[in-house]
Amino acid sequence: MKIRKAIITAAGQSQRSLPLQRLVDRDGNSKTALQIILEEAGTAGCEEICLVVCPGDEDSFRTAAGPRAAQLQFVTQPEPRGYGHALHCARAFAGDEPFLHLVSDHLYVSTGPQRCAQQLVAVASAENCAVSAVHATRETMLPYYGTVGGRRVPQRPNLYEITTVAEKPTPTEAEQTLIVPGLRAGHYLCFFGMHILTPALLGILADEVAQPANRNIQLSPALAKLADRERYLAHEVAGQRYNIGVKYGLLTAQLALALAGNDRAEVLTQLVELVATQPKP
Amino acid sequence: MKIRKAIITAAGQSQRSLPLQRLVDRDGNSKTALQIILEEAGTAGCEEICLVVCPGDEDSFRTAAGPRAAQLQFVTQPEPRGYGHALHCARAFAGDEPFLHLVSDHLYVSTGPQRCAQQLVAVASAENCAVSAVHATRETMLPYYGTVGGRRVPQRPNLYEITTVAEKPTPTEAEQTLIVPGLRAGHYLCFFGMHILTPALLGILADEVAQPANRNIQLSPALAKLADRERYLAHEVAGQRYNIGVKYGLLTAQLALALAGNDRAEVLTQLVELVATQPKP
Repeated sequence: MKIRKAIITAAGQSQRSLPLQRLVDRDGNSKTALQIILEEAGTAGCEEICLVVCPGDEDSFRTAAGPRAAQLQFVTQPEPRGYGHALHCARAFAGDEPFLHLVSDHLYVSTGPQRCAQQLVAVASAENCAVSAVHATRETMLPYYGTVGGRRVPQRPNLYEITTVAEKPTPTEAEQTLIVPGLRAGHYLCFFGMHILTPALLGILADEVAQPANRNIQLSPALAKLADRERYLAHEVAGQRYNIGVKYGLLTAQLALALAGNDRAEVLTQLVELVATQPKP
Repeated sequence: MKIRKAIITAAGQSQRSLPLQRLVDRDGNSKTALQIILEEAGTAGCEEICLVVCPGDEDSFRTAAGPRAAQLQFVTQPEPRGYGHALHCARAFAGDEPFLHLVSDHLYVSTGPQRCAQQLVAVASAENCAVSAVHATRETMLPYYGTVGGRRVPQRPNLYEITTVAEKPTPTEAEQTLIVPGLRAGHYLCFFGMHILTPALLGILADEVAQPANRNIQLSPALAKLADRERYLAHEVAGQRYNIGVKYGLLTAQLALALAGNDRAEVLTQLVELVATQPKP
């Protein structure tokens, strides 16, 4: 299947200013976080990109988008009804096509020449189904992530068939339902903040939204239903994700970009000099 | 003299988004750069703060100001006519009082318990005259700073009487007019981005602005004239300045804040882990 569209959610109350923050990218150029995310989608082949934002944030995001602003379409989430609802707001944009979904509070540093989203799109195109990027993550980090359970696809390293999805599971819950044979002990497949999703997922979300009792619509339960309905894979991409929404998240992401980029030596030197000269408080 | 007012210039085209960037301060709290700068002025005793901005930037700066927004007054610089002109725009705000002037693209990390602006206000209050904060700076950095020449005030460490001011001097010019006896060889007193200025300075700027031939009004020539007219001192404050407008400036400032703050150990650990795990590109 061909993935031409991307949906980026940026309507979370605590995340509204994150995509506007400036960083120096691996190539040494100063960009907003949003520009780096748009490049992730663009280099993966997405020509049309939809940003789901809070009403009133369109202008600041358009300014922060830089040269890719022309490719952008905006959809607003009129009220804070959860992550799944935000994605649902872009249903008309997606139409009947599969799409790349990125969150706006994560930046990615790939270890190989292919960017993380490119790796994911390649797998989904070949397998012709929904695929979520995952990362083998220590049990202590479970409170921060959606986590999948499943089994390895035979003969395919780093590819898993998802049987279940749980949002921020407890260690007990994880041990009972989310252990994936072949992973290192104490490690689980947690979401990487990057998915290739199908119209079926948006149908499931629409059903949830249509029920008046559901005020808050999350994504993970809908993904769990998707796994019941159609083939849904998880792929361990070669790279790291950096959540820029946590304390020192921007610092860590900036350092990771710099250490993986053209300015590695310069930044390492500066860093050592700073540690050496900055007096202990 | 008593310093109750502060003027912060933030109208430079390349600096408009800098004060909106988020960092974690020494106290471990996430703030915008503008909030950190406003705290610098607030803890130095300034009750009224005037921000000189580009027309249209008031709302984004008010949002970024956080809890100190109520103390703020905005003045716009209607057209880009230089740094001195931006300061001139706040003349009505200053009235006939001395004021603290901070730039919006620098953050400060003091080495002692007193913040840098506090140290400067204390000196100006005691000496009853204009005082610019300076830092003994290597000759190689002259292309980036305004630089002062002068002589030590007897019996007072870190205090100098300014006789001349030059903006971004060449090494030859510096050697001829800006050598300050008693400084380490190859070092000059460069501006720190923080001044206590008097109404006389605003009068000099007003004269410059009034001449129709002067399109671009810089601060350093006006400060040179101030040194001719009244007692004008330079004080080496105990601390470091970080220009967040240069490449990796935000990274360096964030690291400096973290290494001088409550989270020093945590950030150092994270930093070493990142350097150890991030593969060389």
